[in-house]
Amino acid sequence: MGNCLGNRCVGNKDTNVRISLPAVCFVWQIAMIILFGVFIRYNYESDTHWVEYMAQQNITSNIENDFYYRYPSFQDVHVMIFVGFGFLMTFLKRYSFGAVGFNFLVAAFGIQWALLMQGWFHSLDYTDGKIKIGIENLINADFCVAGCLIAYGAVLGKVSPVQLLVMTLFGVTLYAVEEFIILSVLHACDAGGSMVIHTFGAYYGLAISWVLYRPNLDQSKRLIGSVYHSDVFAMIGTLFLWMFWPSFNSAIAYHGDGQHRAAINTYLSLASCVLTTVAISSVTQKKGKLDMVHIQNATLAGGVAVGTAAEFLLTCYGSLIVGFCCGIISTFGYLVLTPFMEKSLKIQDTCGIHNLHAIPGFLGGVVGAITAAAATPSAYGEEGLIETFDFTGNFKNRSPNIQGGYQAAGLCVALVFGIGGGILVGLILKLPIWGDPADDACFDDEAYWELPEDEENIPPILEYNHNMTRKQQEV
Amino acid sequence: MGNCLGNRCVGNKDTNVRISLPAVCFVWQIAMIILFGVFIRYNYESDTHWVEYMAQQNITSNIENDFYYRYPSFQDVHVMIFVGFGFLMTFLKRYSFGAVGFNFLVAAFGIQWALLMQGWFHSLDYTDGKIKIGIENLINADFCVAGCLIAYGAVLGKVSPVQLLVMTLFGVTLYAVEEFIILSVLHACDAGGSMVIHTFGAYYGLAISWVLYRPNLDQSKRLIGSVYHSDVFAMIGTLFLWMFWPSFNSAIAYHGDGQHRAAINTYLSLASCVLTTVAISSVTQKKGKLDMVHIQNATLAGGVAVGTAAEFLLTCYGSLIVGFCCGIISTFGYLVLTPFMEKSLKIQDTCGIHNLHAIPGFLGGVVGAITAAAATPSAYGEEGLIETFDFTGNFKNRSPNIQGGYQAAGLCVALVFGIGGGILVGLILKLPIWGDPADDACFDDEAYWELPEDEENIPPILEYNHNMTRKQQEV
Amino acid sequence: MGNCLGNRCVGNKDTNVRISLPAVCFVWQIAMIILFGVFIRYNYESDTHWVEYMAQQNITSNIENDFYYRYPSFQDVHVMIFVGFGFLMTFLKRYSFGAVGFNFLVAAFGIQWALLMQGWFHSLDYTDGKIKIGIENLINADFCVAGCLIAYGAVLGKVSPVQLLVMTLFGVTLYAVEEFIILSVLHACDAGGSMVIHTFGAYYGLAISWVLYRPNLDQSKRLIGSVYHSDVFAMIGTLFLWMFWPSFNSAIAYHGDGQHRAAINTYLSLASCVLTTVAISSVTQKKGKLDMVHIQNATLAGGVAVGTAAEFLLTCYGSLIVGFCCGIISTFGYLVLTPFMEKSLKIQDTCGIHNLHAIPGFLGGVVGAITAAAATPSAYGEEGLIETFDFTGNFKNRSPNIQGGYQAAGLCVALVFGIGGGILVGLILKLPIWGDPADDACFDDEAYWELPEDEENIPPILEYNHNMTRKQQEV
Repeated sequence: MGNCLGNRCVGNKDTNVRISLPAVCFVWQIAMIILFGVFIRYNYESDTHWVEYMAQQNITSNIENDFYYRYPSFQDVHVMIFVGFGFLMTFLKRYSFGAVGFNFLVAAFGIQWALLMQGWFHSLDYTDGKIKIGIENLINADFCVAGCLIAYGAVLGKVSPVQLLVMTLFGVTLYAVEEFIILSVLHACDAGGSMVIHTFGAYYGLAISWVLYRPNLDQSKRLIGSVYHSDVFAMIGTLFLWMFWPSFNSAIAYHGDGQHRAAINTYLSLASCVLTTVAISSVTQKKGKLDMVHIQNATLAGGVAVGTAAEFLLTCYGSLIVGFCCGIISTFGYLVLTPFMEKSLKIQDTCGIHNLHAIPGFLGGVVGAITAAAATPSAYGEEGLIETFDFTGNFKNRSPNIQGGYQAAGLCVALVFGIGGGILVGLILKLPIWGDPADDACFDDEAYWELPEDEENIPPILEYNHNMTRKQQEV
Repeated sequence: MGNCLGNRCVGNKDTNVRISLPAVCFVWQIAMIILFGVFIRYNYESDTHWVEYMAQQNITSNIENDFYYRYPSFQDVHVMIFVGFGFLMTFLKRYSFGAVGFNFLVAAFGIQWALLMQGWFHSLDYTDGKIKIGIENLINADFCVAGCLIAYGAVLGKVSPVQLLVMTLFGVTLYAVEEFIILSVLHACDAGGSMVIHTFGAYYGLAISWVLYRPNLDQSKRLIGSVYHSDVFAMIGTLFLWMFWPSFNSAIAYHGDGQHRAAINTYLSLASCVLTTVAISSVTQKKGKLDMVHIQNATLAGGVAVGTAAEFLLTCYGSLIVGFCCGIISTFGYLVLTPFMEKSLKIQDTCGIHNLHAIPGFLGGVVGAITAAAATPSAYGEEGLIETFDFTGNFKNRSPNIQGGYQAAGLCVALVFGIGGGILVGLILKLPIWGDPADDACFDDEAYWELPEDEENIPPILEYNHNMTRKQQEV
Repeated sequence: MGNCLGNRCVGNKDTNVRISLPAVCFVWQIAMIILFGVFIRYNYESDTHWVEYMAQQNITSNIENDFYYRYPSFQDVHVMIFVGFGFLMTFLKRYSFGAVGFNFLVAAFGIQWALLMQGWFHSLDYTDGKIKIGIENLINADFCVAGCLIAYGAVLGKVSPVQLLVMTLFGVTLYAVEEFIILSVLHACDAGGSMVIHTFGAYYGLAISWVLYRPNLDQSKRLIGSVYHSDVFAMIGTLFLWMFWPSFNSAIAYHGDGQHRAAINTYLSLASCVLTTVAISSVTQKKGKLDMVHIQNATLAGGVAVGTAAEFLLTCYGSLIVGFCCGIISTFGYLVLTPFMEKSLKIQDTCGIHNLHAIPGFLGGVVGAITAAAATPSAYGEEGLIETFDFTGNFKNRSPNIQGGYQAAGLCVALVFGIGGGILVGLILKLPIWGDPADDACFDDEAYWELPEDEENIPPILEYNHNMTRKQQEV
């Protein structure tokens, strides 16, 4: 390594993406424009004909436009995607640019592709073959991208931006299909996406990481882990995720009590989760000190795990119990499972998404199935039961019991799509054409970013003079 | 101190909380689950029977669910509690983990306990003995916790997380009682909590800090004060508090003009406060330079001081005047009062909450009393007067004049509860069982956190080689 | 410079603002209080007579108060102004205090002055000569300040806070006049302010920077540019601007479909813009590495450029195309135009606002004119067309074609006011009384801020002992 002095020597692989990255960005963005031109139109609530629609339907107030029901939640979700996920991953000492920057790139591409993919499945107007979009589509596109960003967490620092874009292209596609099967075909409920988003996204990422296993990753050991300030930056991500998770789980819940209840349940589960995370983190470290990794991540597990059941009558104490368990399980995951998986299963999971998304997502699916199966007309009210589970149309004869079964089936679909899709996409990403970094150059922004000069060399003017003098003295 | 080299030596007190912290977290969280199971239920707006309720009451639209009136404000308040308070306290050079992390822990516990305590006083359904919660309860729980986080500001860096949890347990309890007396018994108004939250919280914290006085705190002198980046982090807290304060003061104000006016008044008072803070900060420093401590804190005093009167007809210029005065008073507080209090009154106030919360909160109570006493039917309109001060039921014969008296009485209640409660709780916290740090180990994350290696030792790869070589050369 | 050791020596100009800064803050704030006292009152929606108004107008629900239509967007805009603009400018290695602190000061003053200036033009109640304010006025005040903060970007690090306040005083005044001419006289539409805010603000700042040209600015070269963490801080600004831009462009759009469509169009344009920014940034750097300057700034150009047309039927793919082009143009601006302008046109543009606001703002005006001119009743619906362009009252016979012409005229007005006003204000700011820094002391917080001791000298306790020992050994 000595002969690296004076020239750029980030590993022995070529991380030059000067052709591939711009090419992918340009071509895909142009494709988006064409596809949007052919397929995407405003829906009746975002179109100028809304005035006429109101008159027709006897709607007396603009406030009935879905925009006013969902826009505040949408913006919260938007913050979670871009600031929440982005900053949560800045914890590494020298990968903050990559964390927040690639997160930004991937999400910006993903939401466009998601509008199309999800639109074909859910918002196609069969009268003219166009996808009609409104605020709910934007929220769903953000949700879809969340799945891919979760997967990014597993491979953080080990892939090139081109690989991330490929991961997102396929991830969004798989997500849309999986979501269609779970929500429309099986008619399962999953307002907060424990199954559809978290279980799928996490296993998708873990499967990719498994295929891309790097046996010599400890050559980058010096850059694994955090520094003081990077941990504080990561807390920005953690807190915005934590605070806005009630919006995440309630954003596309039913108007009225559905959204209201989903927010309350999530709020409670998250609060409970913080205490057990702290407890386990403290009790398992010598001297009882807390570990920032746990505080940054495991505190969020409660939000993941009430994703499916948030709009059901989970009850307030039920939400607390879910958060209680998830804080414990997730923290133990960081302590025990992540090292085990790396060593024995050859799955390198940079952000520990297995503990934050995979296990709590799976549990969330199970909790959802149980809660659904246990629903009774006496608890929900006749109308409430029908509305909560949407027992209408083809599904009007479905009983809560059977619904529970379909919920469980949905969980399996998410797992299969995540693992299966991840392995396939992992194989594609293994091709030696994507400009990924060498084993000794991972977790380093140097590979893909123009870095500013080093912080310690930029003293304030007085200090500067001091140094001058000291150096002169040394001379 | 020389023999500390090579082993952990944070002071000569045992800060090991490996048993106490997990024990408190677990036991209290389990208690919460049990109490929630026994007492807490969804209210009519978050329950599945909302559909039937709507039909019964001839409510035609889901938008009338209180969720849509208050959820955006709730999320803003939530951000203030977790990011605002948390990051405001990150200004210390080596206590950012403790600031943002313990803030997180304390708030997550506090909101649960607050839902119970406040619920018993305000949301108990006497037909079935259950507390029925909705979005307004969540906001009030956040408010309640704000009082305890203010108190945290006074003892920042000098207490253990276990002490903080104990402080919060008692703080929330006292808050709920005090709030019940002020809002329900005295029927005083306090939408933004100048009295209930800020005056109470600040004196609670100051009294605790007085009891816990550390005569040798200057042994930790090296860690008091900020570094460049920690001041920037603290500005994140400041700005989110400042921006969302209009939501704080309007979150539980009356629907319609009440919320609208509260937001406007707060917006104006805060704007005015920034200018006078800058003026005083500059004029009192040699060379006219600004002090970050003032910018970070005193700019917020205007929001505190319109808490009570925000929904009254304070008038726009009245709001500006309140902010004008508070910026001046609060900045002088930091310059004069904080050092005086430490030296003469033996009150060590790490964040200067006396200047940011105690004085402006007290002034806010006074402003509220005056504004209420000065209310006239000609200014408010007959109906407006009744609605603003809720002169209904038992209070329908109360005049604005008398209301002013009750407002002042409310302020006294807040003071008494703050100081009295603080002294009692301070005595409890003085017991030598809580794992607090020694005088020479305060303001140091080392005591309760696993810290990452030091920033300057993590060079980018090129630098790394450089250093290697240089060191080798030195050898 | 050697004789600077041990005493403060930031350049050879006197940056002492101990008299001027407090004087300006005090006098202006007092003026605000008096003017607010004379002129500003609550409007019918924020006044206690709202209850009676509702009864009169047969409004059945408080939710019809404009507060509930606009408050969530207002808070998002508020975050953009204070955190977005503030943190975007923290990228410089030693000017973060100035960036975020002066931004705070300037905005807090500006919003008050804007409420008055815009109020006289738009919200004056001729029956009593009072300005009646509500939530929309607060949003517009924030918008107005945005123009001045854009201008701040051009002179960042080169002016004193007093100069900034003067800039803001005149900037807000010019803005209010220009806005009145464009929106009321010409009856042009500009919901997101491509012309009114961005074009005006950018040329205002650039003209000032041109007049204040510093030929020897490279004496401060050591402080131009970023450090690793300052770039991460700047990303906080970027992301909050990016995420909340849909709220910015829709905040004062028409209720219902107008706000809905404006949010969708902006969301799409911004997403598209990110991909082309990344593409150009990568393809133009050797080794294909990305430049943080581009990611932080050019990604936002798409939001600027759909400001005018956001509420029109721009179509979804039209929005993508606008973003596509702006990402390319803006990034090339940073690569080519900024250096060219500094060298050849003598315009020093610290933040590159020419690329982020001037060009995209101008393009946005053009896009708006074209989209308006191309509007047809068949696309918009008869009623939709009237509502979107407000073809009522004096303007009921205006055709879309003619509207397009007036839109273009509006763009010219913005340009003329920006450049003309900027030159005049620049001449005022050139007077040697404002305490601006010398050429070798620019971009340095040292001039106007009490700075904390340097980061590297504050080791944790163990390190501290180490150092002690080492120093002792050295002795």
